[in-house]
Amino acid sequence: MSTCSSDLGSLLGGGNVANASDTAEYICAQFADTTSAVDTTYLLFSAYLVFAMQLGFAMLCAGSVRKKNAMNIMLTNVLDAAAGALFYYLFGFAFAFGSPSNPFIGKQFFGLKKLPETGFDYPFFLYQWAFAIATAGITSGSIAERTKFTAYLVYSAMLTGFVYPIVSHWFWSADGWASASRNAGEALLFKSGVIDFAGSGVVHLVGGVAGFWGAFIEGPRHGRFDPGFDGLILRGHSASLVVLGTFLLWFGWYGFNAGSFLTILKSYGPPGSIHGQWSAVGRTAVTTTLSGSVAGLTTLFSKRIFISHHWSLIDVCNGVLGGFVAVTSGCSVVDPWAAVICGFISAWVLIGMNRLAARFKYDDPLEAFQLHAGCGTWGIIFTALFARENYVNEVYQGRPGRPFGLFMGGGGRLLAAHVVQILSIIGWVSFTMGPTFFILHKLRLLRICYDDELQGMDPTRHGGHPYPEDCLRPHNPPAV
Amino acid sequence: MSTCSSDLGSLLGGGNVANASDTAEYICAQFADTTSAVDTTYLLFSAYLVFAMQLGFAMLCAGSVRKKNAMNIMLTNVLDAAAGALFYYLFGFAFAFGSPSNPFIGKQFFGLKKLPETGFDYPFFLYQWAFAIATAGITSGSIAERTKFTAYLVYSAMLTGFVYPIVSHWFWSADGWASASRNAGEALLFKSGVIDFAGSGVVHLVGGVAGFWGAFIEGPRHGRFDPGFDGLILRGHSASLVVLGTFLLWFGWYGFNAGSFLTILKSYGPPGSIHGQWSAVGRTAVTTTLSGSVAGLTTLFSKRIFISHHWSLIDVCNGVLGGFVAVTSGCSVVDPWAAVICGFISAWVLIGMNRLAARFKYDDPLEAFQLHAGCGTWGIIFTALFARENYVNEVYQGRPGRPFGLFMGGGGRLLAAHVVQILSIIGWVSFTMGPTFFILHKLRLLRICYDDELQGMDPTRHGGHPYPEDCLRPHNPPAV
Amino acid sequence: MSTCSSDLGSLLGGGNVANASDTAEYICAQFADTTSAVDTTYLLFSAYLVFAMQLGFAMLCAGSVRKKNAMNIMLTNVLDAAAGALFYYLFGFAFAFGSPSNPFIGKQFFGLKKLPETGFDYPFFLYQWAFAIATAGITSGSIAERTKFTAYLVYSAMLTGFVYPIVSHWFWSADGWASASRNAGEALLFKSGVIDFAGSGVVHLVGGVAGFWGAFIEGPRHGRFDPGFDGLILRGHSASLVVLGTFLLWFGWYGFNAGSFLTILKSYGPPGSIHGQWSAVGRTAVTTTLSGSVAGLTTLFSKRIFISHHWSLIDVCNGVLGGFVAVTSGCSVVDPWAAVICGFISAWVLIGMNRLAARFKYDDPLEAFQLHAGCGTWGIIFTALFARENYVNEVYQGRPGRPFGLFMGGGGRLLAAHVVQILSIIGWVSFTMGPTFFILHKLRLLRICYDDELQGMDPTRHGGHPYPEDCLRPHNPPAV
Repeated sequence: MSTCSSDLGSLLGGGNVANASDTAEYICAQFADTTSAVDTTYLLFSAYLVFAMQLGFAMLCAGSVRKKNAMNIMLTNVLDAAAGALFYYLFGFAFAFGSPSNPFIGKQFFGLKKLPETGFDYPFFLYQWAFAIATAGITSGSIAERTKFTAYLVYSAMLTGFVYPIVSHWFWSADGWASASRNAGEALLFKSGVIDFAGSGVVHLVGGVAGFWGAFIEGPRHGRFDPGFDGLILRGHSASLVVLGTFLLWFGWYGFNAGSFLTILKSYGPPGSIHGQWSAVGRTAVTTTLSGSVAGLTTLFSKRIFISHHWSLIDVCNGVLGGFVAVTSGCSVVDPWAAVICGFISAWVLIGMNRLAARFKYDDPLEAFQLHAGCGTWGIIFTALFARENYVNEVYQGRPGRPFGLFMGGGGRLLAAHVVQILSIIGWVSFTMGPTFFILHKLRLLRICYDDELQGMDPTRHGGHPYPEDCLRPHNPPAV
Repeated sequence: MSTCSSDLGSLLGGGNVANASDTAEYICAQFADTTSAVDTTYLLFSAYLVFAMQLGFAMLCAGSVRKKNAMNIMLTNVLDAAAGALFYYLFGFAFAFGSPSNPFIGKQFFGLKKLPETGFDYPFFLYQWAFAIATAGITSGSIAERTKFTAYLVYSAMLTGFVYPIVSHWFWSADGWASASRNAGEALLFKSGVIDFAGSGVVHLVGGVAGFWGAFIEGPRHGRFDPGFDGLILRGHSASLVVLGTFLLWFGWYGFNAGSFLTILKSYGPPGSIHGQWSAVGRTAVTTTLSGSVAGLTTLFSKRIFISHHWSLIDVCNGVLGGFVAVTSGCSVVDPWAAVICGFISAWVLIGMNRLAARFKYDDPLEAFQLHAGCGTWGIIFTALFARENYVNEVYQGRPGRPFGLFMGGGGRLLAAHVVQILSIIGWVSFTMGPTFFILHKLRLLRICYDDELQGMDPTRHGGHPYPEDCLRPHNPPAV
Repeated sequence: MSTCSSDLGSLLGGGNVANASDTAEYICAQFADTTSAVDTTYLLFSAYLVFAMQLGFAMLCAGSVRKKNAMNIMLTNVLDAAAGALFYYLFGFAFAFGSPSNPFIGKQFFGLKKLPETGFDYPFFLYQWAFAIATAGITSGSIAERTKFTAYLVYSAMLTGFVYPIVSHWFWSADGWASASRNAGEALLFKSGVIDFAGSGVVHLVGGVAGFWGAFIEGPRHGRFDPGFDGLILRGHSASLVVLGTFLLWFGWYGFNAGSFLTILKSYGPPGSIHGQWSAVGRTAVTTTLSGSVAGLTTLFSKRIFISHHWSLIDVCNGVLGGFVAVTSGCSVVDPWAAVICGFISAWVLIGMNRLAARFKYDDPLEAFQLHAGCGTWGIIFTALFARENYVNEVYQGRPGRPFGLFMGGGGRLLAAHVVQILSIIGWVSFTMGPTFFILHKLRLLRICYDDELQGMDPTRHGGHPYPEDCLRPHNPPAV
């Protein structure tokens, strides 16, 4: 707020007010407090929304697996949040946003020690924690219905506590080598840096690639590719839970995308020019809505006309989510019409990825790799093509004249940076999570045995069925 | 904020500050930015809550239909949101709020083009979109369990893209012929205009009347009025989903009603008088709560004592929703004690409407017409009777001495305007949606065939059952 | 805002501005309005979150009882909210926060009459109502599956309208005898008062003790302690609903704990010092998260290793909730590392309480007494041990040098006050609710008969089953 103080101080001083600077400082300090309170309110409630996505994941995952495995996957979703809180508190946040640090890994704030007491200390931690656990939730979908619980504990800790924080450091921390908002004086990657606003790459591609290695190494569920079955018997056990989860994710995505501005009380012109971050925040919520909606509609009609020949609810839900994943990268820097294009193509990306998965007999109960890695990658490219100049300069301030979308006349630098992002994420996650899953596999800790898989994870590991029947007569032996 | 600048400018000028007006402008501009950020935060999070109602509708609808039709109705709820986003973006918002325009239909901002860059551009669109899709959700309840999917696609587009936007233009746009907050200089209907604050008429009556025509034209579900069955076999398949949906609607209704102020940082007196929109917003949340609660309680006891003789969960849920629908019109301009009356009577309105529906063999699986049109109409009348003078003048500023509730001594003008609202909505929706459903009926596009209805919409149209059973042995033929 | 006016007035006056005080008042009034709007936004949306907990309770309770009793308990949850609104409006709020009043019971604002028109009138009522209904929700868990509906209506009215409001008056009202923020000039209990920030005692211990007396007096469910069954046949009917409820409670708990600050725009130093309530609010959300998370993890491993030898989803959910209950008292005045300790111990408290309950054949379908009274009591003690000096002085301002946590060097006064809180709550609730349940028992109004219990409450009292099966052929007799 020193700008406020100096500007107002000059005005008052020029107005012959004797103690101009003290007066200016007093008034500006009140504005600074207001800004802290408004921005914290905005960030905290956005964080709560992102947390609600974890509930959405839990319901989506539960509904998408068979009844006999529902408790297993819901337990992983609860633990993603719980274990994620402990790990992210102890070191994940430090690796990601510890500052000052080097371009590759943060090294401050372990256990939230010596956190600077600005308005964005604890709320910012909470917001980033909610992102970290979302990543782990993606991966658990890919390896559902057949993975040992011990393996889950290992990869989840690894992902939330180490692999994901490093990636978020690279692209989102002011110290990160590929960040679009690096500290002043540091060179930007391709003079641009990566514009992955809310994390099509940092969150979704990371979670999707990790899931791919898990699912690929342990192989498909029994029955999934048996001749004559065509996957029919492996349908999830509750469409209601799938819809509940999808809508909760949609609800929470507003916190994910629009919340990623972190602040809302910031003018984009001189004070009082009406145009500011409040408007960009709203536009981001609109682009998010449009991309998911158009992707859902595209999925509905393309599946009906070309593929399954019925109006498929589950496919539409996945289509909507694919549209959200894709627009997550560019939501703040593209126009609504571009978001329509983003959603339309992301539906086809998901359809194509599912075709490929079926062809290569890759089994992913939630389509998590196809959806989060496929549409995530498309989203990163999309941003590099459609990012609009003035939006880019408003959202990423302080470096005038930065590159923007190729199709908008902004040249290829942003695209180059984004290709580097895709490759570095795939490389880093494969390099870390691939061996993790492989070692678990070799130690026979990854996949449950055939009999247990047939019987289900809930009765063999979690103490029973998720929906026990009432036993009307207590003097009969229990039927469970 | 020119008021701020001129007031503060005079003060500073009178205080012998040389460049008084520049100083005043600087300070006031900061206040203007703060106001934009605070109001946008308030509006956006309210919009998110209204969106959560769509999830509430989906769960309420799913739980209220039979298992064999659950995916069908949830798909319509997802598509209401998705298709609604595209249509409302392309032309619905333009028809509703495009300005300047004539009193009957808006004609600007198609595809959000040339939207003025104020703080209320995109967030306002998002908020209004969430309202538009709620309307379509009401209608889908009336015609559940027997309507072809193609018919759904047609009426949903028609309703969200055209019929509803026109109505909201009439009553909520500053250009609308019956708006209570018309542009200065334009005459108000009966010198009053319609006070339908959050839409008992604009949203609920519209959705209910549209649903009536659909359900009336296609007729009751098979078995609903067969002698000896008395509707028993048509009970919805999950009380848990009904409660989940009801509570989510309750949760979202705070965004619907209290959020309809659109802004919160607005003083109702001289600055610093403590009394402002923040208080009215809170009062609105309280009247909403009380009306729904009292309606639920009244339903509980009246059903237990006079009608079904048991404590009925589903009836209480519908009663609560009826109380919300009724108070939606007047929530901002009535006292809490009046809201208690509103809820009490709305319970009886719903009971009476259900009696009438049964007598005339009108079948509405969600009671959507009875609830939304019946209690909505009562709510419009209620407002015209109980609106309090100072609340009306605070909430609808700029026209001092406006009419208020008849029972509060405000004369009959508001009531006259509200009767016109009821008639014009019933007329317009019947005139547009009646023929729509009738043509679909004549083209044999409206209702599914008898065999499909017996078997269910999910297996015949949506690829299977919503809750497939696990098939424990993959080498048996699939049971689905 | 008189501080603002006088400070700024002196500055301007010292700066030779002629009408300094008018100018200062004008500017400060704008700040006051801003503060009202920001704080109301914060409080209202927090209230909405707390309301969402009621949905969480409904889903958790429904999932934790047998299918045949699901509608019964969900109806109590809906009615807690609805009847609670009416009672709390008519007199509960007056008993709790009517002011000025005596230290034991409030006596103003019945029916919200003569409420002062500050920014915290209606929003504050809404927030407190959401707390009151949460208390009733706890109790209904303890006596689930066997309590007459009439008994429910009596105790619920009693608890929400009288017993709970009195307790909140004692500890939270500025007039309360044990409040930590009593009116200036009134002596604090042990020169400290009770720091029960969001209600481990006021809400959870009250609800838990009330539940204990109900469950103790009516005795365990049939079959619960029959030899050879070991509780297996009484498992709740849906793990999905339990997880849904747990996550919704987690989501809402952010409104419960962080929202209990009531305001967010408050500096903890001179204006512009960056450090203020916004930061404390964030810290509170973080301590809440960590305690619940660590409690869940501790439960997971301790159950797996020492007790049930499987990875139990339901136990982890209860563990998480126990951690939240415990930290609710001290969430605003402890460090994150202390919250980790709080959660770790609360898991063991819950395990121990469950051991005791099993040993004494105390049956509580939701573990509500064990969880809310057990972990609630631990939380009250925890605060007295770990409250940090500067946090206590920031959050409870105006009485410098107040006692703080014993282990933090703050002496034993806070602990003494907290022991008094525990004893007085147990005494008051036992003294009021114990006889209430006992009289209902003696009048044979408390417990349903054996046959009804076997058959279930839904078919015998609520008109059928919660999940009626589809009857495919309408001309067969209905199977329900």
